[in-house]
Amino acid sequence: MEGAYERVVELAKRRGFFWQAYEIYGGVGGLYVMGPLGVSMKNKIVELWRSMFVRKHGFVEVDAPSLGPYRVFKASGHVDNFMDPVAECLRCGRKFRADHLLAESGVRAGEGAPVEELERLLNGNRVRCPECGASEWRVSRFLTMFETRIGPYSEDVGFLRPETAQGIFTEFRRIYEVTRERLPLGVAQIGRGFRNEISPRQAMIRLREFNMMELEFFMDPEAGCPYMDEVAGDVLPILTEEVAERGGEDVIEVSARDAVERGIVRNACLAYFMALSARFVESLGVPRSHQRFHGKPARERAHYSAQTFDHEVDVPGLGWLEVAGLAYRTDYDLRSHSEASGKDLSVSVRLPEPELVRRTRWRVSSMEELRRAAGDRWKDVMRIISSSEDPAREIAALGLRMEDLPLVREEIVEKVNVRRFYPHVVEPSYGIERLMVASLSWAYGMREGRVILSLPPRVAPVQVAVFPLVSRDGLDDVARRIASELSRSFDVMYDDDGSIGRRYARADEIGVPFAVTVDYETLSDGTVTIRHRDTWEQERVGEGELARRLAELLGVGGPARSPARSGPRSR
Amino acid sequence: MEGAYERVVELAKRRGFFWQAYEIYGGVGGLYVMGPLGVSMKNKIVELWRSMFVRKHGFVEVDAPSLGPYRVFKASGHVDNFMDPVAECLRCGRKFRADHLLAESGVRAGEGAPVEELERLLNGNRVRCPECGASEWRVSRFLTMFETRIGPYSEDVGFLRPETAQGIFTEFRRIYEVTRERLPLGVAQIGRGFRNEISPRQAMIRLREFNMMELEFFMDPEAGCPYMDEVAGDVLPILTEEVAERGGEDVIEVSARDAVERGIVRNACLAYFMALSARFVESLGVPRSHQRFHGKPARERAHYSAQTFDHEVDVPGLGWLEVAGLAYRTDYDLRSHSEASGKDLSVSVRLPEPELVRRTRWRVSSMEELRRAAGDRWKDVMRIISSSEDPAREIAALGLRMEDLPLVREEIVEKVNVRRFYPHVVEPSYGIERLMVASLSWAYGMREGRVILSLPPRVAPVQVAVFPLVSRDGLDDVARRIASELSRSFDVMYDDDGSIGRRYARADEIGVPFAVTVDYETLSDGTVTIRHRDTWEQERVGEGELARRLAELLGVGGPARSPARSGPRSR
Repeated sequence: MEGAYERVVELAKRRGFFWQAYEIYGGVGGLYVMGPLGVSMKNKIVELWRSMFVRKHGFVEVDAPSLGPYRVFKASGHVDNFMDPVAECLRCGRKFRADHLLAESGVRAGEGAPVEELERLLNGNRVRCPECGASEWRVSRFLTMFETRIGPYSEDVGFLRPETAQGIFTEFRRIYEVTRERLPLGVAQIGRGFRNEISPRQAMIRLREFNMMELEFFMDPEAGCPYMDEVAGDVLPILTEEVAERGGEDVIEVSARDAVERGIVRNACLAYFMALSARFVESLGVPRSHQRFHGKPARERAHYSAQTFDHEVDVPGLGWLEVAGLAYRTDYDLRSHSEASGKDLSVSVRLPEPELVRRTRWRVSSMEELRRAAGDRWKDVMRIISSSEDPAREIAALGLRMEDLPLVREEIVEKVNVRRFYPHVVEPSYGIERLMVASLSWAYGMREGRVILSLPPRVAPVQVAVFPLVSRDGLDDVARRIASELSRSFDVMYDDDGSIGRRYARADEIGVPFAVTVDYETLSDGTVTIRHRDTWEQERVGEGELARRLAELLGVGGPARSPARSGPRSR
Repeated sequence: MEGAYERVVELAKRRGFFWQAYEIYGGVGGLYVMGPLGVSMKNKIVELWRSMFVRKHGFVEVDAPSLGPYRVFKASGHVDNFMDPVAECLRCGRKFRADHLLAESGVRAGEGAPVEELERLLNGNRVRCPECGASEWRVSRFLTMFETRIGPYSEDVGFLRPETAQGIFTEFRRIYEVTRERLPLGVAQIGRGFRNEISPRQAMIRLREFNMMELEFFMDPEAGCPYMDEVAGDVLPILTEEVAERGGEDVIEVSARDAVERGIVRNACLAYFMALSARFVESLGVPRSHQRFHGKPARERAHYSAQTFDHEVDVPGLGWLEVAGLAYRTDYDLRSHSEASGKDLSVSVRLPEPELVRRTRWRVSSMEELRRAAGDRWKDVMRIISSSEDPAREIAALGLRMEDLPLVREEIVEKVNVRRFYPHVVEPSYGIERLMVASLSWAYGMREGRVILSLPPRVAPVQVAVFPLVSRDGLDDVARRIASELSRSFDVMYDDDGSIGRRYARADEIGVPFAVTVDYETLSDGTVTIRHRDTWEQERVGEGELARRLAELLGVGGPARSPARSGPRSR
């Protein structure tokens, strides 16, 4: 549908879903405001996600700072890898994303192409500067984290998080403790992410500040996925890495279980969350036939990922839009933070039965002799032989030679009850603004020349509109009372301005699923009409039945969920 | 209670309400993480605030970026005023907040004291450096906004917002339009605020990143407060500006209405929100007798405020803690942004009846003559006489003299139907972390040597615990089923680990108001016990009655609220 996306953006702005921030100052690229309807819709998307991804599994949620010190993002790999290629016009000095410039000129370059290649392509293809028309470029790498100083000292560099995930990994030890040290452990975080995009242009798609919902699912890599059965038959539309690498677009349809068994998805829990993700996006109104999981070839993946699928939605008038990333992060993050901080973030699990493990041990044959041979350093030697993995090297570092010391090497067999490892991580990560764009775009339609926003009732920002047929004869008083009562249970809008037809139209345009009208019959028999947005059909119900009937129509009442895990282990 | 605050912080950390962020890297001052229980409690405080401050009045909520460009915070006055005095030790170079150093040394200086005075006081009183013991200081002003660059150009300075409010003021025009141009208009925002504190030390009290709930209430300064009647008799404990200025602590108790009539509170809506604020904080468990409104003397007020009351709570073991600021911001913000942006943010209201206004008008007596006398500039002259407030000056700026032009001065009387003005703003602004500390501190108590966290049920992070008496004979299966069913409506925790006494103790410590126990009687007659946290009393109810009884005990079901105002005006 040509211009469909623009029409959605226009509606969103006019009715107050979202608009560009700081318009009175000319606007700032990549910064958007959610207006009243946007906030309400956002909150409903968040609640739906919470119920499907968090509560259902008994997972927990944390809230960590957006700001982090340099060493956290150095350890996570972002300081070295979170870069975009920036092309600077050598005549006017304007800067653009090099790969986007190429794409707009119809030159293909992969997401992870090195800067030299991009510079060669830009200059070789004489790509013009959109600002001044010149075609000489210098391409370099630009760190897309926002940098600042934390505190009054200029050396204390910090960054705004590009993902909420690091605030979960750095706090893993304590979260694991307060949830009583069990795996699998799901930790969610809902909050802002920040990316200093070079030249963001598309409304609500490429943002410098955005709302994320992320789940870090920590698991034993040797355990299976406990939830697989529930989704095993769900069909996943997958654009495999191999096809994507060749620039192909063909999607295969494969069940979640088959995708794992055929090695297309490398981790069973990753497949589980892909299936859950498809259900979630479907419940936002996007048909499954217009979703796909786009496997990212190695050089296009984030530095931490062993496998990534972008969950993409075919948005009318816009094309494929990534609304989520599902990544198998392995133990990259916990291992990196353990090494960088010196704090062990590994966990131990009790083995079903003890295992026998062979290892080498060093024993001191004479303490007296050791004190003589090592002098003051004898305590260091004791420490090294009891804990070091490479005692010969460490003892040499003390200026001693192992063979001069009274040490005896023993091969022993130990009975081991626990296994230590870094939990592996599967991460589904959502951009709320993009989900909103996808949902609004699929809801947008016309009927008899009028806009109908057929949002699923669970994410509609206003659930019920209440209208008096006319604003006199006490109809408005009754309608206002009904609106106020329904407000206890629903998001309600009251409107008595203009003809009833205009009011229905205004409500349809912002996706209010049901409109209640108070008319003269209400005064005589206490009934009202409920008008359905999508069919324009009406039904008549008694006032006493109204709230129950609306709850039924709206499908209010969440799915079952598991009890919180603040409590101790259940078997 | 000595050490009371420390005990609360210890509990919060051990059970996962909150802890210092990035502990594995040694921690970063002023950055905290909310753990699972903290997030749940925070969400409940937010919902309570929404119901009392937003929904009840039919106000709206927006969500604006944390990042803003330089010119927004220049216009708002923050670039020039949002400063703290920093004292640098001339020997070791460490930096501290000058006024805090003085206060810790028992030297009194007002909040707004100039840097020269602070430097004189530090050096004059030979205040020692906490780091190296020296006592020579240099004091300067430090901008406590986090600075960054938005985009790839080094000149594009931006800041992280120190309050969410500016994201409402800059967007006022559009918010006003989508809510159909009515006053009063309440616009709420819930989100992060950032302040680059110089040397934050107190846990969760002085944070560099924190969660705020702000309401900007826009009103016609000539209208009264439509909500006053509801709170007119509520008693406000006020430490007046005059008493505070003298360093006094005496609080007067005065009704909201009297406070306005006696001129103690300068705006009726400010008094209304103070009364509402006292009710809100009371509902978090802080008795009214331990709250006060601390009037800020002029030099201690923020630059935008005509009157400010800090809403303070007496926290056991900590003293008076500011949990909210209630400010009368007048039209400072809308006026400043209008002037800086060149976009008119004033509004017009229709007068009840037209008013006659006398004004001066200039008329051209002969267009031909004007073209001769002004040449090419005749169009400028036309523009100036039709719109300028000082035509003589502007015409002189064109190089012309008014008396040489064919202009006739007329005194006319105009009928005016509308009045234009900048809406005035009253702002209640809350720090969620501080509310949490206040609530937890007042909930913390001991009973028979055990900790009981007597949180009000509405803000308890876990509402219901479900225990099998023992984990055998099917009791655990029944308990798990009940927990799962209750999870549809409540935040539930299931626990079957250890003796029933230990489980009650663990639940009491995190403030679970009600514990449901499944015992052998359950198997025979289908009844369970509900145990009350604060009294340890038990009642027996049938399983079928359980959810209803818990809802009753928890007081679930919000207060009435007004329908949303996305719809058009109601009269």
